[in-house]
Amino acid sequence: MIEEKDEKRDVSYDEEQLFQNLIEENIDEFRKHFLSLHAYERAKFYVKVGPDIRRTMYHFLSPEEMAEIYEAIELDDEEVEHFIKEMDPTYAAKMLSYMYTDDVVDVLNELDQDDRNSFLELMDEETKEEITELLGYEEYTAGSIMTTEYVSIQENSTVRSAMNVLRQEAPDAETIYYVFVVDESHRLTGVLSLRDLIVADEDAFIRDIMSDRVVYAKVTDDQEKIAQIFKDYNFLAFPVVDDNLVLQGIITVDDIIDVIDEEASDDYSKLAGISDIDDIASSPFKAAKQRLPWLVMLLFLGMITATLMGQFEETLEKVALLALFIPLISGTSGNSGTQALAVVVRGIATGEIDEKSKLKMIFREMGTGLITGIVCGLIVVGVVFVWKQSLLIGLLVGTAICCSIFVATIAGSFIPLLIHKLGIDPAVASGPFITTLNDITSILIYLGLATLLLGQL
Amino acid sequence: MIEEKDEKRDVSYDEEQLFQNLIEENIDEFRKHFLSLHAYERAKFYVKVGPDIRRTMYHFLSPEEMAEIYEAIELDDEEVEHFIKEMDPTYAAKMLSYMYTDDVVDVLNELDQDDRNSFLELMDEETKEEITELLGYEEYTAGSIMTTEYVSIQENSTVRSAMNVLRQEAPDAETIYYVFVVDESHRLTGVLSLRDLIVADEDAFIRDIMSDRVVYAKVTDDQEKIAQIFKDYNFLAFPVVDDNLVLQGIITVDDIIDVIDEEASDDYSKLAGISDIDDIASSPFKAAKQRLPWLVMLLFLGMITATLMGQFEETLEKVALLALFIPLISGTSGNSGTQALAVVVRGIATGEIDEKSKLKMIFREMGTGLITGIVCGLIVVGVVFVWKQSLLIGLLVGTAICCSIFVATIAGSFIPLLIHKLGIDPAVASGPFITTLNDITSILIYLGLATLLLGQL
Repeated sequence: MIEEKDEKRDVSYDEEQLFQNLIEENIDEFRKHFLSLHAYERAKFYVKVGPDIRRTMYHFLSPEEMAEIYEAIELDDEEVEHFIKEMDPTYAAKMLSYMYTDDVVDVLNELDQDDRNSFLELMDEETKEEITELLGYEEYTAGSIMTTEYVSIQENSTVRSAMNVLRQEAPDAETIYYVFVVDESHRLTGVLSLRDLIVADEDAFIRDIMSDRVVYAKVTDDQEKIAQIFKDYNFLAFPVVDDNLVLQGIITVDDIIDVIDEEASDDYSKLAGISDIDDIASSPFKAAKQRLPWLVMLLFLGMITATLMGQFEETLEKVALLALFIPLISGTSGNSGTQALAVVVRGIATGEIDEKSKLKMIFREMGTGLITGIVCGLIVVGVVFVWKQSLLIGLLVGTAICCSIFVATIAGSFIPLLIHKLGIDPAVASGPFITTLNDITSILIYLGLATLLLGQL
Repeated sequence: MIEEKDEKRDVSYDEEQLFQNLIEENIDEFRKHFLSLHAYERAKFYVKVGPDIRRTMYHFLSPEEMAEIYEAIELDDEEVEHFIKEMDPTYAAKMLSYMYTDDVVDVLNELDQDDRNSFLELMDEETKEEITELLGYEEYTAGSIMTTEYVSIQENSTVRSAMNVLRQEAPDAETIYYVFVVDESHRLTGVLSLRDLIVADEDAFIRDIMSDRVVYAKVTDDQEKIAQIFKDYNFLAFPVVDDNLVLQGIITVDDIIDVIDEEASDDYSKLAGISDIDDIASSPFKAAKQRLPWLVMLLFLGMITATLMGQFEETLEKVALLALFIPLISGTSGNSGTQALAVVVRGIATGEIDEKSKLKMIFREMGTGLITGIVCGLIVVGVVFVWKQSLLIGLLVGTAICCSIFVATIAGSFIPLLIHKLGIDPAVASGPFITTLNDITSILIYLGLATLLLGQL
């Protein structure tokens, strides 16, 4: 029966009741309620309660049941370490042995070297080897997010035997909706969906019904590239092979959703000059600590602006009116630079911008900068002329705006491309950084022009 | 056999060959090659070739085969209309009838009212009714992204009969990996995965093995909320019901990936003040047209800054030195405002910020603004004192920075919350807008303070 609690879409459960059961050590009642929940809800409850209650949970739940919680959990790096250390080491090791290998790797990556090794020692030889190999892959590669619990089958099996394998593997495999076909040396040769299997004749041979145009990734491929393939092809799972095409693991769509989310949030944060862990749950002190490095760095960049402007103090002294347009000019150049930056960073992330199209991109942005610069410049000439009744000031401010937008647009597109060329994530060229840089150039252009025209002003 | 073209992960295919086959009207060769490709590759080819070649494709491929292409395609709004109009209307209508209803709705939404109606008239009564209903749901709701091709089954069926239903529905259903259990009035009562089914005893009753704690969405639910549920629960598909819990359709994970991507890109674009369709493929003119509205609007906001500063022209005339710090102060306040903005917009998007935590959030940001303001202020006092040998100027600039950061941080968090409260997407409070707004306040604070201290300066 569905509980009709419409406010929250998730099925409601009685948190208070579970809590009471734990305090009163009413194991049967607790297990009955708790185990009927979806793993995500069990995980939410587990994270919410205090350490004492969690310790009771370790007694009431088997390592296998706890493993399900850990597969559904999204933990902060610190929390993982903290929680695992609450457990009895043998219990924790057992729990890890029930988890999918990709999730085990996520947990072990949060522990220090010693703890990691002692857990590895407690595992059986085969698991230990698999996990050690997975731990060896670089972060953000296919190898680091893949799992080794997939279903593979030989080309010369029949559909019937494949279905039997699936039935056996169903409790352990991370997905049974794809079966990967391999040859004798475990090289990937084909793929079959469970959909294909259940409509096929039971006596058909796998090799005759499998699809041999398999899309796959290398263990060293970047996770962002793989996310793009999932988006394009609408896969639910995806094989990962080594250089000899030997099947090493699979990546499932739920992991890819996390990747897409992570990368998007990362780009977003960098555009704003914030840290990804600066979330609303942290204290003002923690938030300030996250934001200050950026702010202070930009403050010093801003000091450079002030120093450079110092060269023009004389000009400003003679025509104080000039100062009024400084925020307008620096603001507009900052805005147009950020626009160009965002388009280029997004283009690089989606793979739309590659080696070939880079130069075209810069020319495109030069064109865009010229057009927007001229339009904004003309508007400013008109407005300033009407307002200040001075064509000269109007022309000066308009020209400065036009040149600043042109330069800022090129900088906004060129800098991320350059950074990308150097093998660094182009998103580090964050918005505030580009903006502050453009502040400097735009003010130099403006005050430089003004000083040249000083006789006339 | 896997083609070993390692540079590109997708399986290579001979574009030139396909092209030749079409020009030479070699239908058999073309079909042999083309139909062996993944639907996504077929779609890429289809979009790439010119209208004449596409017309040949309509002759060489059945409406059903074309439907597969249209399900894999990602088209610009304009392209869809353009392409559909190339087809013979009966062919197009037939193609639409082979597509999943959610994809049909996507296509029809791009056509004008008249064309849409004439296509609907060409469909059979049942499909027409279904599509009309789907078209009626508001954009960005569960109803607008769900499909009606799901597998449902009665509670009192057996596993064997369920498997038979699945086998029959497999060619048509969008996913067969979940079976939705309904009562006599088609109200959702449970869910079963194909994994559960294949490991179950063939004679077991569905009601005994199904999970009755179903997580579902209402047709009117926001797509972003649903994306969050997919992320939390790692679903592959998800039922959508009406107010009476009657099953209306399902949402599959591939559609959710598009939603996540769309929403992330949307937030990102708004933070930078660009339009989502400003991509690298557009001409400089098109790009400029996309960016100018923002730039010009911000230009006029910047004019307001200039006008307000005009009130302080006298002060600036007397102490030209003051102008040097204007970009520093406005830049820093802009940066801290953008940081606060990004954290809050992200918090609202992920659902971390709700009614209850709003006030807490503002207090948190007040605290963060105070701490970052004081730290940056003190740094500035020190640097300016050393540089200009004037404690007074140092204190003035430092105080202005401190106050500006405080105000900007509060504005950056309060404004998106306010906009959200008004039922508008908080991301419209884009970065450049907040920055320009903070420019104004920070300069007023700075020059106001300076004017007060004018006697001392």
